[in-house]
Amino acid sequence: MLKIKELGEFGFIDSIKLGKTVDDLKVGIGDDAAIISPHEEFDIAVTTDILVEGSHFFADTDPFAIGYRSMCANLSDIAAMGAIPKFYFVSLGINPERDFGYVKDIYRGLNYLAEQFDTNLAGGDTIKSDKTIISITLIGYVEKSVAIKREGKIEDRDLIVSVGPLGYSGAGLEVIKNKLDGFDEQAKVFLYPYPQVVAGRILAHSKLVRVMMDNSDGLASCIENLVIKNGFGAILFEEELFDEKLKAIAEITNRDYLDFVFNGGEDFGLVAVVRRDGFLDLSTFLEKSLINNNVKIIGEITQERKIVLRRLDNSFLEIKKTGYVQF
Amino acid sequence: MLKIKELGEFGFIDSIKLGKTVDDLKVGIGDDAAIISPHEEFDIAVTTDILVEGSHFFADTDPFAIGYRSMCANLSDIAAMGAIPKFYFVSLGINPERDFGYVKDIYRGLNYLAEQFDTNLAGGDTIKSDKTIISITLIGYVEKSVAIKREGKIEDRDLIVSVGPLGYSGAGLEVIKNKLDGFDEQAKVFLYPYPQVVAGRILAHSKLVRVMMDNSDGLASCIENLVIKNGFGAILFEEELFDEKLKAIAEITNRDYLDFVFNGGEDFGLVAVVRRDGFLDLSTFLEKSLINNNVKIIGEITQERKIVLRRLDNSFLEIKKTGYVQF
Repeated sequence: MLKIKELGEFGFIDSIKLGKTVDDLKVGIGDDAAIISPHEEFDIAVTTDILVEGSHFFADTDPFAIGYRSMCANLSDIAAMGAIPKFYFVSLGINPERDFGYVKDIYRGLNYLAEQFDTNLAGGDTIKSDKTIISITLIGYVEKSVAIKREGKIEDRDLIVSVGPLGYSGAGLEVIKNKLDGFDEQAKVFLYPYPQVVAGRILAHSKLVRVMMDNSDGLASCIENLVIKNGFGAILFEEELFDEKLKAIAEITNRDYLDFVFNGGEDFGLVAVVRRDGFLDLSTFLEKSLINNNVKIIGEITQERKIVLRRLDNSFLEIKKTGYVQF
Repeated sequence: MLKIKELGEFGFIDSIKLGKTVDDLKVGIGDDAAIISPHEEFDIAVTTDILVEGSHFFADTDPFAIGYRSMCANLSDIAAMGAIPKFYFVSLGINPERDFGYVKDIYRGLNYLAEQFDTNLAGGDTIKSDKTIISITLIGYVEKSVAIKREGKIEDRDLIVSVGPLGYSGAGLEVIKNKLDGFDEQAKVFLYPYPQVVAGRILAHSKLVRVMMDNSDGLASCIENLVIKNGFGAILFEEELFDEKLKAIAEITNRDYLDFVFNGGEDFGLVAVVRRDGFLDLSTFLEKSLINNNVKIIGEITQERKIVLRRLDNSFLEIKKTGYVQF
């Protein structure tokens, strides 16, 4: 996994360090509440997610994977603000019949990912429940005025940038359900997605990003929130979305690969609208620095308020909530 | 309900104001994470609680009461640090078969209590779940170095102070289960407990409090945590714990009223160890200012590391985890 210290270029590297701040935790586990003492230059980012057996995983799902994915979802939300994850709180609902190893493995999964970002457990609660429930609150820091929102001023000809895989998680689920061979990378993104915390920090500090969000609900939701709701439209380039493996999985499972990309979700990458000037340099840097992070300019902002996909054959497809319209 | 502005005396009243700080919420509901921008003099207090149908309430429990109690439990934790509650996050698990009114009533219950303390919803998550789940994270502010912990230096002859009812919630549950008449006050504490946020602020700012916690696990747990774990013992005075109504409910239901006091819990009051000098003035002030808050000196710190109750007849009873020992 990439550590921020392995990044070397760019003047802002110092300012995006994740760093250890356990000292900021004045009161931790075991008191009525945790007390956190952030440096005065920071705002606080707070995100919360809940997963429950039956809806998000099953009684026999590997507990390490449950913990890992819960942490990933929260880290991804913090990444999407350009913030530094710092402290997490876990409320667990556990059936008393469960083995203690099951609970320990959930925490191992949580911590495995959290510690890669120097993020520490600061409190929580465990209760009795028939079905497993895992509710995480993650607190991050972000320098005042650095946080990147979903809502904001964007401009015609701005670039649409994607970081991380697109559609792999949805396709990976099909790989696992149908026990397909030769698609390990897609299955891995489904089982062990990677949150783009470092990329989020670099993007937020670049001063080039206008709006950003994580792609956990799929690309269509990102474009809707970042582009349409901000008063513009988008043209997306299929050559940047196309992937031979996705296409193959889609064919085997009788799906459209664009469904994985636009509606699959759970990839836990980032989508951002960025200024055109200066971004190409940053993009090269990102691609070089972030191992296998798949930084791509997938489209551009247009004035007409709709989402259009320019296909490989140069035909156009309108992306709507209800489906695709050829034109 | 008492509003902090109704308090008039003491020089520190200005400094314990709860106040509106919605402006501190730079990014609220609808983005990947909330962004909170506290003033630099504050630390952040964070508490989280989860309640689930079947363990904490039933399928037919009034949803307003579920919301109210969830908020109360969290406010009480923030109160026990001496902090000001500010922003809350709600993760709800809801069965899709439920009426929308059910969900609305949970939020109404949450907000009914939260708004009395100018505490605002800042984010959350709603998911599908067979059983109702409610997971709250509450964020508060507390001036640097003001937060009161459970662990700390206490001294022989310090006073043990209780704020709020003791044992009423446990007794109130019996009143409701057995449909007893004439015990409305106890039933009310069970159904609609009141978090001691204002008292917590006054105590924390008095500079007289050494350690403090909320009494949601019962008085025995408070004395264990605040006194025994800090290396001392306690003598408690039954005349300050005794209550005719508790005694009557205990007799009708074949219980010991001391069980309600020591092990009942869920009263959501505060217990603190305070310096002897100067506290009597503050105590008078608290009693006068906080309507019906029942501020009492219920005991004293002793050197011998055990918990002793001085009974009404001047005999002594040792309070142990396993029960009571007459001596």
